[in-house]
Amino acid sequence: MKPLILVTNDDGITSKGIRILVEIMQKIGNVVVVAPNSPQSGKGHAITIGEPLRLYSTAIFDNIDEYECSGTPADCVKLAKNHVLKDNKPDLIVSGINHGSNSSISILYSGTMSAAIEGAIEGIPAIGFSLCDFNEDADFSHAEAYIESITRTAIEKGIPKGVALNVNIPAKSEEPIKGPIVCRQADAKWQEKFDYRIDPNGRGYFWMAGDFVNFDIEKEDTDVWALDNNYISIVPSQFDLTAYAVLKDLKSWNL
Amino acid sequence: MKPLILVTNDDGITSKGIRILVEIMQKIGNVVVVAPNSPQSGKGHAITIGEPLRLYSTAIFDNIDEYECSGTPADCVKLAKNHVLKDNKPDLIVSGINHGSNSSISILYSGTMSAAIEGAIEGIPAIGFSLCDFNEDADFSHAEAYIESITRTAIEKGIPKGVALNVNIPAKSEEPIKGPIVCRQADAKWQEKFDYRIDPNGRGYFWMAGDFVNFDIEKEDTDVWALDNNYISIVPSQFDLTAYAVLKDLKSWNL
Repeated sequence: MKPLILVTNDDGITSKGIRILVEIMQKIGNVVVVAPNSPQSGKGHAITIGEPLRLYSTAIFDNIDEYECSGTPADCVKLAKNHVLKDNKPDLIVSGINHGSNSSISILYSGTMSAAIEGAIEGIPAIGFSLCDFNEDADFSHAEAYIESITRTAIEKGIPKGVALNVNIPAKSEEPIKGPIVCRQADAKWQEKFDYRIDPNGRGYFWMAGDFVNFDIEKEDTDVWALDNNYISIVPSQFDLTAYAVLKDLKSWNL
Repeated sequence: MKPLILVTNDDGITSKGIRILVEIMQKIGNVVVVAPNSPQSGKGHAITIGEPLRLYSTAIFDNIDEYECSGTPADCVKLAKNHVLKDNKPDLIVSGINHGSNSSISILYSGTMSAAIEGAIEGIPAIGFSLCDFNEDADFSHAEAYIESITRTAIEKGIPKGVALNVNIPAKSEEPIKGPIVCRQADAKWQEKFDYRIDPNGRGYFWMAGDFVNFDIEKEDTDVWALDNNYISIVPSQFDLTAYAVLKDLKSWNL
């Protein structure tokens, strides 16, 4: 039997990245799409509380059960599981292909990866795919065969419980991709720069922008190093945030 | 010199919980408040991309530098650090007191804890405080002395790098609090129930609701057990999501 694959993303159901991902997944299994009806980049693991959610069927793809949702990527997974698919638990959730990197610290802000992690929370194997190219018309052609093979391998081997895969793919360049490698999340942050402006009514506002700061420069076991060196990075990512390494230290505090 | 303490939350700057937290922190240090101008519960680690941010000074508290921000809790920390405080890096960020538990899996959806984790990303000691009582007029009186002493201890001992503390406090009851204990995040999830309704225009919509499902029942090292037994739970929480335990296994995949 073909696996049941739920496809979602954070760039919205009309983006190029999800179209490519749907086409790849149709080679592997039976596809259902539940994706946001608007861009949800940077929404992290937000869910919609205190406001109603809308869900409408769409006619974007060929011969697919497809829906757009007014909520966040995590909302999409929850609505898909509990309402759209009901008793048909998906065999796999894939999210993306994101337009832009979700490596390193960006995983925390990423709607794409939060959808995948939501899958892991539900005990469903899940993979988030991102291309390191923010262009809305980005070239995904070099990524497609890798996405297919990584997905097939993950289905065959089984993604460990409590884990979702964070897969990032270098932007298309003249240099060919060297292949996928498993690595850790680089220690990095965004150094924000706020651009202050005055609106036509005389009131101030800010645009958030920023530079990526990598504290793990030249660390070959990190996702940022992998991408900088034209590898595809695969980071197994978990939702247990407990800092086990410091538990003992904290227990010695006189609380 | 008194420590510089940044206070934020996710229930919004007008909530009771942040007022109590400000009053406690004024006993310990110099307080600056940058908090959302609207409820941001469930916003997780969302940040505002592609939309402008507003920041206005307010006059809610006594003798405090205070601002309300149109963005998320994570936005508040970023704007506070880069614009409001600029070269004055805070010695501590405290977030809360949240109206409602942020134990276990709820940390992922929590704006309160995402603000604290944003502090950890910036290398600033950070604590999120939550009371297990969703009532907007919740009774925080039994929590105040504990919040003060936990904060003083954390300043004295130093919160480890890369870690924020997730502190949850049982709701007020007849039974006295047994004290704080350091524990791990319980393995649990929310089992959503979507309530489907028809609006006056004949279109369907959903309300998200759900039940908490604990997979770690009677596990005495977890935050849920601690709270169920009237302890204050303290979970050191990290932003490195790498699932180190499965790295080796994944590296054996033929990718």
